[in-house]
Amino acid sequence: MPTANRNPEIRKDAVNNRWVILSSARSRRPSDFKSKSQSKTDSNSTSNAQPQCPFCAGNEHQCAPEIFRVPEDSTSDWKVRVIENLYPALSRQPEVKSDHEEYCQANGTAGEVSLGGFGFHDVIIESPVHSVHLPDLSPAGVAVVLLAYKKRIEQLCAVDSISFVQVFKNHGASAGASMSHSHSQILALPVVPTTASTRLDSMKEYHNQTGRCSLCDIHTDNFLIDESTHFISIAPFASTFPFEIWIVPRHHSSHYHELDEDKAIDLGGLLKLTLLKLSLQLNDPPYNFMIHTSPLQVTSSQSPYTHWYIQIVPQLSTIGGFEMGTGCYINPVFPEDAAKILREVEVPKKE
Amino acid sequence: MPTANRNPEIRKDAVNNRWVILSSARSRRPSDFKSKSQSKTDSNSTSNAQPQCPFCAGNEHQCAPEIFRVPEDSTSDWKVRVIENLYPALSRQPEVKSDHEEYCQANGTAGEVSLGGFGFHDVIIESPVHSVHLPDLSPAGVAVVLLAYKKRIEQLCAVDSISFVQVFKNHGASAGASMSHSHSQILALPVVPTTASTRLDSMKEYHNQTGRCSLCDIHTDNFLIDESTHFISIAPFASTFPFEIWIVPRHHSSHYHELDEDKAIDLGGLLKLTLLKLSLQLNDPPYNFMIHTSPLQVTSSQSPYTHWYIQIVPQLSTIGGFEMGTGCYINPVFPEDAAKILREVEVPKKE
Repeated sequence: MPTANRNPEIRKDAVNNRWVILSSARSRRPSDFKSKSQSKTDSNSTSNAQPQCPFCAGNEHQCAPEIFRVPEDSTSDWKVRVIENLYPALSRQPEVKSDHEEYCQANGTAGEVSLGGFGFHDVIIESPVHSVHLPDLSPAGVAVVLLAYKKRIEQLCAVDSISFVQVFKNHGASAGASMSHSHSQILALPVVPTTASTRLDSMKEYHNQTGRCSLCDIHTDNFLIDESTHFISIAPFASTFPFEIWIVPRHHSSHYHELDEDKAIDLGGLLKLTLLKLSLQLNDPPYNFMIHTSPLQVTSSQSPYTHWYIQIVPQLSTIGGFEMGTGCYINPVFPEDAAKILREVEVPKKE
Repeated sequence: MPTANRNPEIRKDAVNNRWVILSSARSRRPSDFKSKSQSKTDSNSTSNAQPQCPFCAGNEHQCAPEIFRVPEDSTSDWKVRVIENLYPALSRQPEVKSDHEEYCQANGTAGEVSLGGFGFHDVIIESPVHSVHLPDLSPAGVAVVLLAYKKRIEQLCAVDSISFVQVFKNHGASAGASMSHSHSQILALPVVPTTASTRLDSMKEYHNQTGRCSLCDIHTDNFLIDESTHFISIAPFASTFPFEIWIVPRHHSSHYHELDEDKAIDLGGLLKLTLLKLSLQLNDPPYNFMIHTSPLQVTSSQSPYTHWYIQIVPQLSTIGGFEMGTGCYINPVFPEDAAKILREVEVPKKE
């Protein structure tokens, strides 16, 4: 039974090698958690076309170049568009130079590693209609988005110097979204970021100790929220954030882009359900989701312990100096309580 | 010269083993950065005593128990008080049990590590007066606060099972402060958090390669902001956040609590200057600072490469899914630009 009177615990996330402090002492009851800032500034808008929004159908010319659309031969009736980010964090020019790199080479400064900022920064527009958000789509509609991620990742895999691809979605201004039209982003990097390399090391260690994959082994008792044919959704044992959710493939798979069409529709249904439940329970919170896939150049010896998953984080708390300093978060909601609450949320069926 | 037209770069922080993307493409000019939310909600208050504030002199009875005050024998004329946090994240009872630990022991669940939430969570009230913030104190006044940290850390060192102490300050609501009266916090943990263990590994690797300490070696050319007798302030080479500042002891020192009184006054002056410059340049932003000290049980073989420092981070940007997913931040302000701007801020002398 959810309770605010649990003793504090310090738990370790064996997948990510991260400590978390679970402590409900300073908090409301888990079932009273609500977002303070609602994410949709324009949810009451009845007008579908927003003249100022470059992501709306009809305004395609205001956007940076398109990479592809779905369906490929669609015109104004597209479902999803993948475009370049108009303000990319990285440069698509492989020859981009780091001024500092040249300086380092000339001056031989120890420990200073600097690369030219080569990489790709793309945007996936999830719907042509301004007021339609990801969970408003049908499971097959969400699958179109999920398969667009897959197709774009496969294209990026073909670029020699790309080592890692991060797919993510920021929903709501306080979760980092600068546009309210439903979209997600893909960044392709020439390095493997720390979180991914730490995860790889941590999952390897578990595999060395047990001979098994830590995500195949993941504990669902008390932590399960929902399940579909090919996926489960859980509140992870060492949740960093209140109401954090992971969607994990039931069957071992290193890379997100191994997803096929059947599984995409199944995942589309579970992702939709999960986002609807978060919205209903937590008052339409801003949220982020991240697809945690493995580095592109995973070797055959690494594949037995690498397993992709989706992490969904509603923005309910402020990060302070303790979290920044230690990387150890104080989470006021025990995941077993979050799981119970989310299991029991009833999502009204649309007719 | 600060410019928004630099090429993007991917840099590695050799101290913390973290990648950062420096990219000014989507940003204002560095000199135009200002905080949107000012940190002080009550800066115009002319009244010093706030009847509802438990941290104000006269309201001591509203607080959790006091650990010590400075001066020790002061009554209403105290300068600094160190008290227990009324809503501690951890329990001071060493025998605190983790319900889940017992469950794991009974059920043998692989990979799930859970400890009882034992630890200390204290508050340092930096002034008896509600409207006086840390940089309003004299260098010697700031030193009183810094030496109170030291004294409390030394007390916590004496507790057998404590492995790590994190001192931090949250200033302003969006930086995580729930009270506006100037204060900082100390959390003492029975584990070494990931950030600290990663830093230890990373500094060890640098030492293995070069025979030197990476923070003794730190590059100041272009990155220096200010210096005092015993400390330097810099915008670090691979700054994670815009206008991030590190204050680093010039001479090798593993633990913050090695600080003596002379150095505390010197550091007090530099910390005061740094916080005043941030406030003037960035429109009184909310900020965090963290004292990055070494784990308490550092061995003699580790001490040649462990070196404490203070990290100061003004809250100017929103964290999105990319940063959460990868641990790699996109910083729109190159540290060499931030350093130049902060070097040139003129702080008016008080008479």
